[in-house]
Amino acid sequence: MANKNITSRDVDFAKWYDNVVSSAKLSKYSNVKGCIILEPNGYAIWEKIQQNLDKMFKESGHKNVAMPLLIPESLMKKEGELIEGFAPEAAWVTMGGNKTLEERMCIRPTSETVFSDYFSGAISSYRDLPLKYNQWCSVLRWEKETRPFLRSREFWWQEGHTIHETASEAEKETQDMLDTYARFFRDYLAIPVIGGRKTDKEKFAGAEYTLSIEALMYNGVSLQSGTSHYFGQKFSKAYDIKFLNRNNELEYAYQTSWGVSSRMIGALIMVHGDDDGLILPPKIAPTQVRIVPIKVEENILSVAKEYYEKLKNAGISVELDDDDKTSAGFKFAESEVLGVPVRIEIGMRDLENGQITLSRRDTKEKIQVSKDCDIVAEIQALMNDIQNNLLQRATNRRDSMTYTATNLDEFAKIMNNTPGFIKADWCGNEECELKVKEIRGTKSRCILENEKMLTGKCVVCGRPARHLVLWGIQY
Amino acid sequence: MANKNITSRDVDFAKWYDNVVSSAKLSKYSNVKGCIILEPNGYAIWEKIQQNLDKMFKESGHKNVAMPLLIPESLMKKEGELIEGFAPEAAWVTMGGNKTLEERMCIRPTSETVFSDYFSGAISSYRDLPLKYNQWCSVLRWEKETRPFLRSREFWWQEGHTIHETASEAEKETQDMLDTYARFFRDYLAIPVIGGRKTDKEKFAGAEYTLSIEALMYNGVSLQSGTSHYFGQKFSKAYDIKFLNRNNELEYAYQTSWGVSSRMIGALIMVHGDDDGLILPPKIAPTQVRIVPIKVEENILSVAKEYYEKLKNAGISVELDDDDKTSAGFKFAESEVLGVPVRIEIGMRDLENGQITLSRRDTKEKIQVSKDCDIVAEIQALMNDIQNNLLQRATNRRDSMTYTATNLDEFAKIMNNTPGFIKADWCGNEECELKVKEIRGTKSRCILENEKMLTGKCVVCGRPARHLVLWGIQY
Repeated sequence: MANKNITSRDVDFAKWYDNVVSSAKLSKYSNVKGCIILEPNGYAIWEKIQQNLDKMFKESGHKNVAMPLLIPESLMKKEGELIEGFAPEAAWVTMGGNKTLEERMCIRPTSETVFSDYFSGAISSYRDLPLKYNQWCSVLRWEKETRPFLRSREFWWQEGHTIHETASEAEKETQDMLDTYARFFRDYLAIPVIGGRKTDKEKFAGAEYTLSIEALMYNGVSLQSGTSHYFGQKFSKAYDIKFLNRNNELEYAYQTSWGVSSRMIGALIMVHGDDDGLILPPKIAPTQVRIVPIKVEENILSVAKEYYEKLKNAGISVELDDDDKTSAGFKFAESEVLGVPVRIEIGMRDLENGQITLSRRDTKEKIQVSKDCDIVAEIQALMNDIQNNLLQRATNRRDSMTYTATNLDEFAKIMNNTPGFIKADWCGNEECELKVKEIRGTKSRCILENEKMLTGKCVVCGRPARHLVLWGIQY
Repeated sequence: MANKNITSRDVDFAKWYDNVVSSAKLSKYSNVKGCIILEPNGYAIWEKIQQNLDKMFKESGHKNVAMPLLIPESLMKKEGELIEGFAPEAAWVTMGGNKTLEERMCIRPTSETVFSDYFSGAISSYRDLPLKYNQWCSVLRWEKETRPFLRSREFWWQEGHTIHETASEAEKETQDMLDTYARFFRDYLAIPVIGGRKTDKEKFAGAEYTLSIEALMYNGVSLQSGTSHYFGQKFSKAYDIKFLNRNNELEYAYQTSWGVSSRMIGALIMVHGDDDGLILPPKIAPTQVRIVPIKVEENILSVAKEYYEKLKNAGISVELDDDDKTSAGFKFAESEVLGVPVRIEIGMRDLENGQITLSRRDTKEKIQVSKDCDIVAEIQALMNDIQNNLLQRATNRRDSMTYTATNLDEFAKIMNNTPGFIKADWCGNEECELKVKEIRGTKSRCILENEKMLTGKCVVCGRPARHLVLWGIQY
């Protein structure tokens, strides 16, 4: 019995997505065109993401800071490629108080420029390096088309910015942070990702190169889920970030930046969700367990409260739905639409048989356990199982939707009928990349540097290939 | 031996403040006029504040959300008093992408308008109430004069916004949140505050009334440290926030908002700090204990590491300063300028005597304890003592600088010679408030509703008084 407020994802995926977002009360559009509101349920997921990622950042020696929201145009312009890339999307403040500003300022679309400006005054010697900073904030990009979480004018993210003594150390940081993202996606979001290098066409404006992780949604569309950029000395030359090196010579620092955003919530929805709503991996679910008394009566409630206390004291995030105005059926549907991983159902008949029912959100399976079981251990084991199952299920689906193609006909046939990831060889010319784009807008996702090429011939032009590339239709 | 980079606070308090901010590396001005950067040490304090306050908010049933940064002018204008109050300080976005916007938008100076707009679409019945929301974000006000933490164009804060079924419930929320702030200041920041109601002249634009907590700095200047506003139905009428009440009639909701900001870091500096730098209460210190080996030698280091592990495992935030390039004296000074509550000093001679030294930041006292003591218990007891001592010291100082005055001469003499808080009766007329302002800009801090008047005559005009008021020079 599917949720009547939710269109089936196999019928209309875009509508299904919007229905899940609104039924689970994650987000609403605001009266500011293209800007969303993160409602309590959406923000609670974002908080869980922040807590866990922030811990990983700190464990690897990163420190949080806060940089200004506004960037003067002259500061923005010091590095030419960046301003060129972001100018079409910038929002400009031209008045402060009741006066026209002498110089307009943009609301940060990203903060390389302000970090670089800060770094230039913060170091003098190699002993001051590395500086490994991060900030959690929102940024603004004047997008034309918007979808909640996937693309909105304002979005929430973290941006890491680091400077280093040597190129190799900075390059290692670039890779390390990509690996951190991939680990977070796997271990917390239960989403398998593929990491690689962006082509020159798709890299970040101003970067020497960009690494990305790419995930595949249920409908076969891919989502760029995180990026890590190596800048070399580009920004340090433009912003004068110099230090005395070990040979007592002035040298420009080597720089990185990396970010993931509230877009991850979109990925959670589209990788795990079903026709009943959201499905959240236990490790990222704001509520891990919801206890539903089939009838709100004292003898059932007293048992429910006992479980509630035990689970709460064990550090499990648990809610007791003891509202006596709504039916058990309504409560079941609600816990499902919200994606709560485990529901404990306590009914009179069950209790008489010395049992309770654990209902898992991922498989809808109902498991009878003894009323006197070690509830904490049961729930922990079940949550582990759900976490693993979600990753396995997403991996299997991703793998079954990952194809290879050795010529353009084959490529087009796949993308037109059963879209997903396609692995195909590429000669390295942008011309061929643009040719692929004619097929439903398919873009290169990333270069798979550690995998062997298929035939050694470009899937488009047939000339000698230089890379195996992952391709996909993108959000 | 005072820190040579820090001017004595008794010589030049303003300079002392700036010296502490920069020596402790809390904040720097950015290249955006009037906008500051929160550096790692400053941001770490902000994070501790956030964690603890956020927990208190959630325990009292509040939920976090995120609202848009931009507010269209028409939305801003729906409530007349608010726009009048904030228009002179607003920063306006007039261009998005490369186009002039049809309607300009301001960067939020505060978010009553966007919350109200959201609330109007979010409720239909009394069953949907209350909604108790909060957001952590930065806001922008185009201030002319700025000081790090005390007043800057961009600052970081939380803003709570709630709507309720009845006036009394909303008024209770207004008072409850003020009490929450007062408790947080007392129990975490070790700062005593005085709470009361703002005069009409000093209340928030658009509020029925404003409650505030007021703290006194070392130099006798007062700092408005948090505010809680009761709006009644003002915004709900302007923004159409209606619900069906228990009599099945449409009624406008009753509303509150409340906020505290990164200004609290300024209060921490100016209430507790001394000529050696910052002094942080243990409950809010990012680093609670720093271990300094007098010499970085293996036999000392091994003991240091043992303590480090024990304290860390007990959940105490501890650092081991094992840099072998700097002297113990340098390390001592650094831990002092950063305000680390406890330093553990481990020297060879001490060790031979079976001892180590605990050095407390608040009193500079050095305490010898047995090398084999229960270090976790010792440190916890010491931190408790420091936390209590800081509050006691600040309270004593505040009390000794709180005066009464029954006529304007007396009033002026105090403010000109030994400024602090002055309690004095007031008739309720703005004219008299303005008269007081002529004395070094002294303003009413708040009306002390639960205290008896002194003489029943206004300190300015001598006519019958209506309130006992707390007055002070303000930041």
